[in-house]
Amino acid sequence: MAGAPTFDDVQEAAARLQGLVHHTPVLTCSSLDDRVGAQVFCKCENFQKAGAFKFRGASNAVTSLSDAEAKRGVATHSSGNHGAALALAARLRDVPARIVMPTNAPESKKAAVAAYGGTIVYCEPTQEAREAVLEAVVRDTGAAFVHPYDNAKVIAGQGTAALELCAAAPELDVILAPVGGGGMISGTALTVAARSPGTQVVAAEPEAADDAYRSLAAGKILPANYPNTVADGLRTSLGDLTFAIIQHHVAQIVTVSEDAIIAAMRYVWERMKIIIEPSSAVPIAALLDNRLDVSGKRVGVMLTGGNVDLGRLPWTAAPSP
Amino acid sequence: MAGAPTFDDVQEAAARLQGLVHHTPVLTCSSLDDRVGAQVFCKCENFQKAGAFKFRGASNAVTSLSDAEAKRGVATHSSGNHGAALALAARLRDVPARIVMPTNAPESKKAAVAAYGGTIVYCEPTQEAREAVLEAVVRDTGAAFVHPYDNAKVIAGQGTAALELCAAAPELDVILAPVGGGGMISGTALTVAARSPGTQVVAAEPEAADDAYRSLAAGKILPANYPNTVADGLRTSLGDLTFAIIQHHVAQIVTVSEDAIIAAMRYVWERMKIIIEPSSAVPIAALLDNRLDVSGKRVGVMLTGGNVDLGRLPWTAAPSP
Repeated sequence: MAGAPTFDDVQEAAARLQGLVHHTPVLTCSSLDDRVGAQVFCKCENFQKAGAFKFRGASNAVTSLSDAEAKRGVATHSSGNHGAALALAARLRDVPARIVMPTNAPESKKAAVAAYGGTIVYCEPTQEAREAVLEAVVRDTGAAFVHPYDNAKVIAGQGTAALELCAAAPELDVILAPVGGGGMISGTALTVAARSPGTQVVAAEPEAADDAYRSLAAGKILPANYPNTVADGLRTSLGDLTFAIIQHHVAQIVTVSEDAIIAAMRYVWERMKIIIEPSSAVPIAALLDNRLDVSGKRVGVMLTGGNVDLGRLPWTAAPSP
Repeated sequence: MAGAPTFDDVQEAAARLQGLVHHTPVLTCSSLDDRVGAQVFCKCENFQKAGAFKFRGASNAVTSLSDAEAKRGVATHSSGNHGAALALAARLRDVPARIVMPTNAPESKKAAVAAYGGTIVYCEPTQEAREAVLEAVVRDTGAAFVHPYDNAKVIAGQGTAALELCAAAPELDVILAPVGGGGMISGTALTVAARSPGTQVVAAEPEAADDAYRSLAAGKILPANYPNTVADGLRTSLGDLTFAIIQHHVAQIVTVSEDAIIAAMRYVWERMKIIIEPSSAVPIAALLDNRLDVSGKRVGVMLTGGNVDLGRLPWTAAPSP
């Protein structure tokens, strides 16, 4: 496909992002290993700048712009981690970022974009409004549109996390990552195919937002249709670039229930003492729920982010005052 | 003082604990540094086995017993992390642990002791009952009493955390640790006095449980008198061994409000994406609240533990079902 990213792009991204993104740690947990019957290596992108792997792709996109392009700034639509990541990446290059957000986006996400110096442009909470407002912003400002996942620079940037994981934990049998729009899983797949071809890449998805699972079965992109899952980072549909890579390189997509996601998130908080967001708990849920056979294997897991509204945890009834 | 631990004991403990305790990471956080105006190095004992530094002291005590002593098992009174840590340390040597706990101890703490194979012996929730029941257990079983903090092996074991911190972050200007019974702060002080004598040791304490502060001012141990602080690990009074070391080696005790503790705990969860318990947030609160001047300095902080009831967070109103 024209414009499709390759492993060369991932390696270029890794060079470009050196010193700009955190080289996040890989943590292990003996009680998780005992429970799953495998050796699990968790790549902690929850410790990444802006709290999620999204900063890798956003930074790669921003630092790839020419000076003339960069001067006009960047723009995107996002109600989640990509908006904050792009705002921070733009601030570090000292260029403007305009983030189109639905009026009903969580306060914590709006606050993050604002804290990183991004300009929020509000839209009605529909896909049509979001795209129309973004188009107007791009037309008015000349800003470069950085799509949250269907962008070669973004995918290549996300692939650098797997590069670090493969170096820290060689000879993995499987790498699991969540799939929403597909930026992380397709970047991971590009890296693994080139660097560790014996490693299976498995995507994990909420049952309640199983559009990637259905798309792979149907052989074409099926929309997510506003799914209601606690894993708020995984509500989006696949894009053309990400779907093509997933079709070629992803061995399997496993799905997990909402209860399993919440239980896995709490398990990681309790046992590993780290904060992960619900989307990050999806591959852990697949392991804890035995959705694939990993017994005796070496398993890598992408813990994709740690941005949680601490006043509204999925296992507590009432929100904070 | 007879039986007082020395730095030699800390070094012996470090050799004995090699491979048995986690060598925990030292994390930094640029937004914390910016906010405080210092370089802060956090020693993550929240990632220690059994979720707190207490496993160091308990393991040192258990592994120091002769085979004949060990066979009779160990006993302690604890409603917190020391009980769970001693149960795990005993299990790893395959000897019995009897933990005297008040009937009103948190369910999560009882569950942790039981999960590590400890035998819980219940008592009424008073200091007298706790001591009387423990005495009976020791008389009946011949178990070795491992005091939570007023025990030379325990203090020496806790001092190994500072040994690792001084190696990972040399030439610190200050090391901050919370003070409850004083095991961590006195072990830290022994290590720092020998290994890094230019480093000031500062204790941090809840205002609502400021018995160490008052004791240091009075020149004698004053009791804690059942203080009501969210920092449940810091409700205890000092012991003879810990008080003597604190008098000699601790530069200053700073106190912080309950609101500051809760805000600091939430700050660490949000910015560092790690789970710390309220007691661990006390030194962070001292930094965020400018309770001592650290501007431009290199500051070590002991994050002592991460055992939290996730259904009852101090910033949410309602408990989990």
